[in-house]
Amino acid sequence: MYSVEVLQEKINAEIQDRLLKLKVRNPAELYQPVEYALNIGGKRLRPVMLLLSYNLFSEEIENAFPAAFAIETFHNFTLLHDDIMDKADVRRNSPTVHRKFSENGAILSGDVMAFLSYQNLIECKSERLKDVIGLFTKTAIEVCEGQQYDMDFENRLDVTEAEYLEMIRLKTAVLLGSSLKAGALLANQPDEMAEQLYQFGSNLGMAFQLQDDLLDTFGTQETFGKKIGGDILANKKTYLLIKALELSSGVQLSELKKWIGTDNVQDEIKINAVTNIYRQVGIEKFTEEKIDFYFEQSTKILQIISLSEIQKQQLKLLSNKILKRDH
Amino acid sequence: MYSVEVLQEKINAEIQDRLLKLKVRNPAELYQPVEYALNIGGKRLRPVMLLLSYNLFSEEIENAFPAAFAIETFHNFTLLHDDIMDKADVRRNSPTVHRKFSENGAILSGDVMAFLSYQNLIECKSERLKDVIGLFTKTAIEVCEGQQYDMDFENRLDVTEAEYLEMIRLKTAVLLGSSLKAGALLANQPDEMAEQLYQFGSNLGMAFQLQDDLLDTFGTQETFGKKIGGDILANKKTYLLIKALELSSGVQLSELKKWIGTDNVQDEIKINAVTNIYRQVGIEKFTEEKIDFYFEQSTKILQIISLSEIQKQQLKLLSNKILKRDH
Repeated sequence: MYSVEVLQEKINAEIQDRLLKLKVRNPAELYQPVEYALNIGGKRLRPVMLLLSYNLFSEEIENAFPAAFAIETFHNFTLLHDDIMDKADVRRNSPTVHRKFSENGAILSGDVMAFLSYQNLIECKSERLKDVIGLFTKTAIEVCEGQQYDMDFENRLDVTEAEYLEMIRLKTAVLLGSSLKAGALLANQPDEMAEQLYQFGSNLGMAFQLQDDLLDTFGTQETFGKKIGGDILANKKTYLLIKALELSSGVQLSELKKWIGTDNVQDEIKINAVTNIYRQVGIEKFTEEKIDFYFEQSTKILQIISLSEIQKQQLKLLSNKILKRDH
Repeated sequence: MYSVEVLQEKINAEIQDRLLKLKVRNPAELYQPVEYALNIGGKRLRPVMLLLSYNLFSEEIENAFPAAFAIETFHNFTLLHDDIMDKADVRRNSPTVHRKFSENGAILSGDVMAFLSYQNLIECKSERLKDVIGLFTKTAIEVCEGQQYDMDFENRLDVTEAEYLEMIRLKTAVLLGSSLKAGALLANQPDEMAEQLYQFGSNLGMAFQLQDDLLDTFGTQETFGKKIGGDILANKKTYLLIKALELSSGVQLSELKKWIGTDNVQDEIKINAVTNIYRQVGIEKFTEEKIDFYFEQSTKILQIISLSEIQKQQLKLLSNKILKRDH
């Protein structure tokens, strides 16, 4: 088995290779934004997960490269369209595609990325390819559903914790689960193994998204990589806000609601005010408990899954990487 | 074999059935625009073509229903996104999806339609399903490329006839060719048969698009179903305009260019002026010759294709329907 770091290097090199081929395709106006988006990088977590899962069962990881590229292309397609919908100007410290090129360009180049994903996916030779295509398609539909819920929540102050958790399951967790499951299916593993890896990955995905919510307010710019407080400024319905609305009452609740509706104030003042309310109601503890809950769910799956200790160790290293934990 | 009319009725009923199932899916905000777009109707030419092609080789046409629905869903996905990019307000006498709902809604519901296409496609049982998925994916990428060229042409006055023909091949013709080819592949036909049907369909597609260009200026609202002169008002780079720019010179050419750049004038005045120049340079004849050329290409394929006279008759009826010809 390759280390997570080596898998990361290999997929990075593979993506660069495939981008060179995309670069020469015509019309250039269609493919340049694709190359731009995929070139900016990011953690490339999903293709690493797919390769790692495949590599649990096979050393011939180059067989899974096309699918790994497919899942990264799909993920970036969702980012292109989400960024238009969210009117986001910056991603990974660079202008978003619709700012760098045009909104029409981001729509159409996003579209072609969705189909390029399939074109790469079907390059893979596997007895279970049809199942992989079905999984990929089901997941893509769920990601769209999750994004729709996320947009719907913008106009609501009564989003429940359960609704929020279902939204992040669809928008984020299922794709992480599917990355692992696709790797197993491509390696001709039976349904049970594939399904357990899916559950492991999607529970990690839940923990990953909740941690992202938490770090956006309580992290440091250094470890988080983005400016702290962005979610608060954007009045985003995160786990923190939904839970704080649920836990607070009276003056605290009306204060919180007032800040959510206030945009004509200095950034730092709003961030500090909302963060203070979060602290008063103990949001950090609640969120950490929830993260631990999903992390433990994933750990329980590791206990029952039919893998050797060495294979399990590989999945533990992956979850530490995703959640930046040392235990 | 079923008549074209019966195939049309059957696919209409099937689409209604499938829309009822979509209607109850959540989130409603995601699926309502999908149902709205597919409910407005249109000619449903592509699913009829797919069914007709399948029906040349098999009477069990319900096996091909999911693929027929898939291709109609895909086609409507492209319309949703094209209408955003073209800022179109009306389609089929109804508000476009982004006007009726929202631009974000049209982006995301369009996205989910692309994936719903695949979900339906893989419902089909066929030994050649993988080839159908590959064909569908390649075609989808080409349609995106065609749309990109179409947008690029907006800012150019030097588009050549060859460039224009390549654009409509990608944007329109390949999907008609693929509809027929997919039907043949689903019916387990060999590559040669599938490829000949593809060529037959894509040549018809070329003739179909050129005829659409011609009728937009020289048809009657009654037969064309849309207001006459829309392309002229939108300064659209149609075959007529590109050919007229090529054929005219001197005062005529500068007149034509002046009108293309003039938008602050009564609709009728501009339409009449440009139509007059078209008449002077004989655009009708040139376009009709081009339509005939592609129609004859499709006829030549019918001569060599390994089908019975009854099967060929069915394809002739289809081409008459597409091109509204009586011979």
